[in-house]
Amino acid sequence: MRERPLLSNATRPATVEVESMNERGERLATAIAGEHPLTLYLDKRELVTLMTLGQFPEALAIGYLRNQRLVRSLAEIRSVQVDWDVASCAVTTFAGVADLDAKLEKRTVTTGCGQGTVFGDLMAEIDSVALPVDARLTEATYFRLMDNVRRYDTVYKAAGAVHGCALARGDEIMMFVEDVGRHNAVDAIAGRMWLEDLDGADKIFYTTGRLTSEMVIKCAQMGIPFLVSRSGLTQMGYEIARRAGITMIGRATGRHYLLFTGAQRFLRTASTEARDRSAVVT
Amino acid sequence: MRERPLLSNATRPATVEVESMNERGERLATAIAGEHPLTLYLDKRELVTLMTLGQFPEALAIGYLRNQRLVRSLAEIRSVQVDWDVASCAVTTFAGVADLDAKLEKRTVTTGCGQGTVFGDLMAEIDSVALPVDARLTEATYFRLMDNVRRYDTVYKAAGAVHGCALARGDEIMMFVEDVGRHNAVDAIAGRMWLEDLDGADKIFYTTGRLTSEMVIKCAQMGIPFLVSRSGLTQMGYEIARRAGITMIGRATGRHYLLFTGAQRFLRTASTEARDRSAVVT
Repeated sequence: MRERPLLSNATRPATVEVESMNERGERLATAIAGEHPLTLYLDKRELVTLMTLGQFPEALAIGYLRNQRLVRSLAEIRSVQVDWDVASCAVTTFAGVADLDAKLEKRTVTTGCGQGTVFGDLMAEIDSVALPVDARLTEATYFRLMDNVRRYDTVYKAAGAVHGCALARGDEIMMFVEDVGRHNAVDAIAGRMWLEDLDGADKIFYTTGRLTSEMVIKCAQMGIPFLVSRSGLTQMGYEIARRAGITMIGRATGRHYLLFTGAQRFLRTASTEARDRSAVVT
Repeated sequence: MRERPLLSNATRPATVEVESMNERGERLATAIAGEHPLTLYLDKRELVTLMTLGQFPEALAIGYLRNQRLVRSLAEIRSVQVDWDVASCAVTTFAGVADLDAKLEKRTVTTGCGQGTVFGDLMAEIDSVALPVDARLTEATYFRLMDNVRRYDTVYKAAGAVHGCALARGDEIMMFVEDVGRHNAVDAIAGRMWLEDLDGADKIFYTTGRLTSEMVIKCAQMGIPFLVSRSGLTQMGYEIARRAGITMIGRATGRHYLLFTGAQRFLRTASTEARDRSAVVT
């Protein structure tokens, strides 16, 4: 077992209560999602201010550095210390980050609900991603996973205003992270995958958020062959998934789904009822 | 009438069709939302790459510069030229932007589904915002506006994966902009408000997206006293709305809403039925 960085454990409460008034004039104590600025410092250099729910701030910091390609392995990181009193997270490395100035200088702020990534570089990297060709997901396992996701106790059910992401192996949810930004939730999962020494090759990534370009790129970077979203997708999300060979499912609600790319990994086992209905429609 | 900048008119198709397969094994032509990188240059200096649906790219560029406080009025802008062949938007000013290097150097990438803004500066600016104290919105007008929003023909209905924002005066929707990122939609509205010489003081801003800190800050910056969202809100969104004195309504679906802040501007006119139900509950 390799050495873990020295981590603080600075979770914030997920919700707070405020008063609202509904259409019947009733005053209600209403749970709303927490949102806290957290400024990341890498070896004392200020990088970014993330607005976060604060559930896994240390994993978020690590995953941010991972997905931004600022550190290449967990072994480079000596310590991650979050101090909410000053809204900061100090990450220190053992040996410093080579060319940090050059890397930050180059950084283009890329948006679309995004986070500031070197988009051009990431697109080039997509072509170097090799997702496992022999991974398989059966429809029965997929439906059981969707049931597990639906039953999961979430901040969203209590307060809304957050996106959720889950990392699953088969129908088992290994981690579920919610945050005010979609990308923070993905990054926190990327950080926890490093901390728990988990590989992406046999995993399924589920998100409540839309499958835009950056979302699909991050899934590919994490080496995860299956990407499932409750929401829709964009043209670039679709093109990147096809290029990277991701098995991508959108509009996953109840028994309904749309399989967009990478169909060879998904083993459909239509129920009798579904076959009957299909026969009628076709 | 003041002079407008020289504008290209480079709208992109909102949706494209791709093939998907549903749970019954049927192959379907499925509309998905466009998503295109657009790199903004200000006086030949590269600023940012926005991932956008591309409905109003010129207004998006202008609104981005406005909301980032890089230009202070439309009169500073000579020309906005979008060229999708090279995925770029060139903005030129008449006199250059003072201290552009310093402004860009200072910029912290702030996220939470955000866009790269000088967060600290924006918070300071909130205290200088003076929203009209005498603006009023009646519940009847509000309900008519929600009906109009519901009936509006949107990319979302066809393809999902976009957020929508509307600028309204009373129950009249003056503009409706959708984009793959919430912030792009807001920025495009900010740009169109400048282009159409519209003031925020008597307007209502509607968004399908969550009311996070940056969303509420931008609404305040545009001088709009009413902010309505179909979704929920975060703690910082709530705190900023209260501090700026915005009248903020969340969870606006059908006849249901929750009024969180600025109640003095909202004139409730409960129906008899609603009063009866209220009496039962209380």
